[in-house]
Amino acid sequence: MTMLERAREMDAADPLAKYRDRFDLPDGVIYLDGNSLGALPKTTPERLAQVMHDEWGRDLIKSWNTADWISLPQRVGGKIAPLIGAEPHEVIVADSVSVNLFKLMSAALAMQKGRKVILSEPGNFPTDLYMIQGLEKQGLATQRLADRDAIIEALDEDVALLLLTHVHYKTGQKYDMAALTKAAHEAGALVLWDLSHTGGAMPVELNESGADFAVGCGYKYLNGGPGAPAYAFVAERHQDALEQPLSGWMGHAQPFAFDDDYQPAPGVDRLLCGTAPILSVAALEEGVDLVAEIGVDRLWEKSQALSGFLLVCLEDAGVTTRAVRGEPVELRTSRQPSSFGRLRTNGVLELVSPGDADQRGSQLSFRHEDAYALCQALIARGVIGDFRAPDVLRLGFAPAYLRFEDMAETARHLAEVLESGEWRQAEFSERAAVT
Amino acid sequence: MTMLERAREMDAADPLAKYRDRFDLPDGVIYLDGNSLGALPKTTPERLAQVMHDEWGRDLIKSWNTADWISLPQRVGGKIAPLIGAEPHEVIVADSVSVNLFKLMSAALAMQKGRKVILSEPGNFPTDLYMIQGLEKQGLATQRLADRDAIIEALDEDVALLLLTHVHYKTGQKYDMAALTKAAHEAGALVLWDLSHTGGAMPVELNESGADFAVGCGYKYLNGGPGAPAYAFVAERHQDALEQPLSGWMGHAQPFAFDDDYQPAPGVDRLLCGTAPILSVAALEEGVDLVAEIGVDRLWEKSQALSGFLLVCLEDAGVTTRAVRGEPVELRTSRQPSSFGRLRTNGVLELVSPGDADQRGSQLSFRHEDAYALCQALIARGVIGDFRAPDVLRLGFAPAYLRFEDMAETARHLAEVLESGEWRQAEFSERAAVT
Repeated sequence: MTMLERAREMDAADPLAKYRDRFDLPDGVIYLDGNSLGALPKTTPERLAQVMHDEWGRDLIKSWNTADWISLPQRVGGKIAPLIGAEPHEVIVADSVSVNLFKLMSAALAMQKGRKVILSEPGNFPTDLYMIQGLEKQGLATQRLADRDAIIEALDEDVALLLLTHVHYKTGQKYDMAALTKAAHEAGALVLWDLSHTGGAMPVELNESGADFAVGCGYKYLNGGPGAPAYAFVAERHQDALEQPLSGWMGHAQPFAFDDDYQPAPGVDRLLCGTAPILSVAALEEGVDLVAEIGVDRLWEKSQALSGFLLVCLEDAGVTTRAVRGEPVELRTSRQPSSFGRLRTNGVLELVSPGDADQRGSQLSFRHEDAYALCQALIARGVIGDFRAPDVLRLGFAPAYLRFEDMAETARHLAEVLESGEWRQAEFSERAAVT
Repeated sequence: MTMLERAREMDAADPLAKYRDRFDLPDGVIYLDGNSLGALPKTTPERLAQVMHDEWGRDLIKSWNTADWISLPQRVGGKIAPLIGAEPHEVIVADSVSVNLFKLMSAALAMQKGRKVILSEPGNFPTDLYMIQGLEKQGLATQRLADRDAIIEALDEDVALLLLTHVHYKTGQKYDMAALTKAAHEAGALVLWDLSHTGGAMPVELNESGADFAVGCGYKYLNGGPGAPAYAFVAERHQDALEQPLSGWMGHAQPFAFDDDYQPAPGVDRLLCGTAPILSVAALEEGVDLVAEIGVDRLWEKSQALSGFLLVCLEDAGVTTRAVRGEPVELRTSRQPSSFGRLRTNGVLELVSPGDADQRGSQLSFRHEDAYALCQALIARGVIGDFRAPDVLRLGFAPAYLRFEDMAETARHLAEVLESGEWRQAEFSERAAVT
């Protein structure tokens, strides 16, 4: 039996196979970039047409009440909560991941008098570090970066907050949330988890892990649309004392009293700042509803099966995927091509992600000297992954709409591209604005 | 000739009358709340359907390049620029008014070493004050409030920034932008103008006035939809030195280099923080295009004609509109009913807005003890204005879709409501979540 035949048998037996039809997907495309932009749920255009025509168009300003726009950030947040192991009143949709990071880092610093250090890792998703640096410019925080295996020892009495991304955007490495949270608390630090590559992809246990704060992305595994608003989590025990400087009117206890003095709204509502972009939040709700219906446990199980099967198919297709073992994974981005890539033959991809599916997120990342061109050559064949500078080809698995057949075909295309050397064509190395 | 007949003649002669058909408006409604939520342009649902189906659905992640999503904030900002007297490279769409206030106030403080005071007026739109208070909590700013006629004398050597709303949300009073900017500069202060009730309603001359910074709202006169993203202006001369703490990855010089260290993008791009909510920004573009097509000069001319005609119609209908003259207008919100309202008979509305159309924005605000119930009674008749606590009935004029006939009818309804006392019905005083 060929791998493709085997894949089709697996698809036929897949209880999640039916959900593919709930997305509006282009023909002839294998979409392995749902971890960058999730696909379009079929209900979303309908929902937005309804919001535009019936709510905005017909009822105009009254829709803040009649369509309950005013509670949309809480309602959608409440639906995200069970996906990440939180209570509905602990999660709210607001702004972007970046802006929410600023709010929650500021809140943590305010709670941690005498401690100014925010600890993270080099190579964390840039915006996480940049937002620390923003607070640093304000004179309110000090950034400290420690490599993944040195984080626990870097937790000293100066650390106010540990900020980590649960699943690394580039490598797919996953932190042990409970262990790191415990270590941070033992050192007197609070923890803020960035769930951008986690929420909607796998079960997360924020409360069971004792997490203090979290943020996450609406446009990846939650399928909320390009630039969908983000969400933020504050553990109930911190809510009453929470102070954050982006104290806009929508986070006021009584926005429509139009008082001159800010009084924070109860609970997580005080994370609201300006008026929520209703069209975008409504689109997010459709994506969240669909993920919730399928269930993150089932999605995660299938994700692991998909990525495991892709590795098998790659091996079968003659692509050597060599795991990076024993060597430190260089997460810092540099403009110079990686030294790893240079040493490899064309047929070898360096597996940057952990080989053990339990240790990684819903992605497989491979290092190759010409990862950018390789990625473009795959895209030309309809296999859409992405490139992460300087040398990583990243394949993400959104199991709600991916088939095992797609894995077999991806392996075939990747083998053909590597063997033919077609990725060396000049057109594939022309960099686009967004890579 | 009745006022209604006169109105219809004016409509017949109105060069802007044809634009009403470019909006999707409900039947039987006179919408005087475009200064809170602008109406739905007919092209917007079509545009969003295209963004969803063709861009998100078909091209998925590639649309960041192929549909140029990545430049959407700059493109729409560039289209807003001529409406507010700025150059295209000085304006960008990002986040909310509140978040942009925080960025620009922070930037101003960073430029003004040794000065910490942000000067504003009591009763300014709450979020403007709340964001100052956020910076105050951070220990970076000191809020100082001075009444409208005492602002110039409050400009001393401690003032880093003067933050004013060009047209007051509640009263419609308009500041002399050039004069206040000049006074601030003479005192060594920078100026940040909140154009929320100005942009798209009337010509604004930011550069001619020498303004330093501005923010404005997308969901009022720009018809961008509920919670539409906001815009921000930075005068070219300040762009190179601008530092703002919400230094997210989209404001980085090379977001897709994924560097660990923040380097601000050139110019106004550094005001970007997270990923823009593309659906909402695309909707905003439709609204902006329509306003730009009609032209702010023509809109402003018609707005003044509409509000002037409404005052004539009210007088004709027997509603006394007494201007507040000589008495200080109490802008601070208090839970107690206004002392003015108590003294008036039912048939008298206190005109809070300046009687001279040149001195006000695109609105007329009336004080009445039971303004809330009055507003609800009008809404029950299909005349949609809004209430601003504690005692203001606010009627806004979005001349792109309002007719002179609507003014005559509004006056008739208002006179009937006041005369009949129907606003005293219990149902009209039940407060909704959003007022």
